[in-house]
Amino acid sequence: MSVRRFEGFRWEDVPLLAYKDGGPYKGVTRQVLFEGDASLPVQWRYFEVAPGGHSTLERHEHLHYVLILKGRGRCLVGETVSVIGEHDLVEVPSLAWHQFRAAGDAPLGFLCLVSASRDKPQLPGPAELAALRQKPEVAAFIRP
Amino acid sequence: MSVRRFEGFRWEDVPLLAYKDGGPYKGVTRQVLFEGDASLPVQWRYFEVAPGGHSTLERHEHLHYVLILKGRGRCLVGETVSVIGEHDLVEVPSLAWHQFRAAGDAPLGFLCLVSASRDKPQLPGPAELAALRQKPEVAAFIRP
Repeated sequence: MSVRRFEGFRWEDVPLLAYKDGGPYKGVTRQVLFEGDASLPVQWRYFEVAPGGHSTLERHEHLHYVLILKGRGRCLVGETVSVIGEHDLVEVPSLAWHQFRAAGDAPLGFLCLVSASRDKPQLPGPAELAALRQKPEVAAFIRP
Repeated sequence: MSVRRFEGFRWEDVPLLAYKDGGPYKGVTRQVLFEGDASLPVQWRYFEVAPGGHSTLERHEHLHYVLILKGRGRCLVGETVSVIGEHDLVEVPSLAWHQFRAAGDAPLGFLCLVSASRDKPQLPGPAELAALRQKPEVAAFIRP
């Protein structure tokens, strides 16, 4: 089947999954839109963060390329917290600490593109958290 | 800059380009959202087809992975014509003939994911057009 219909932020024949196994997060689901192929070795996912929820604060060597599809919120990339809304693009460079938080009164749904072969996310240890918290804006934002 | 703002179906620092050089098409623009990188070797583009316009009827070995972001229309993939609308997913398999047409009264904007290294599109010759036209629905749809 070439076309998979969209309805209510679900896609035909795409299961709704838990966000992930490791790391703290709140109210996040995952749908894998494209599993990748030898000729297009990427995984394309849709994550949805419920109002007030957040993804895991983490970093990894592989890039993320993100497009907001629904709602609004804020994200941390490196040491910068940005307000994000529909169709904004977010590039998460290699080894940048990052976290996505939905607004309190709106979900945050986003497409996320990653390489099919990628390293495992790293969680911050006490020294890394202390370094992140040097910046008051970041300290107030993160949910480790 | 990690975040590129979206406004009016344009993204900050993303130029609006002509669709392509070769092959017949009508009313199509292109924006390259992500150029690809050694660790994520894909190109992520946004194409917008004006009301009544169409992309090129073509095929190639590389896969396309498409998500409709705006408007509505129809597409041919292989021998099937489908009505498509916002957030529907379209997978264009290797060597499938394909063409996207916007509705007469609405644009059709879509995200399109391809491998950074890919073969050149092929246009249909007279024999291939005759084969495509065997199916009346396809004959009525295509704009070669």
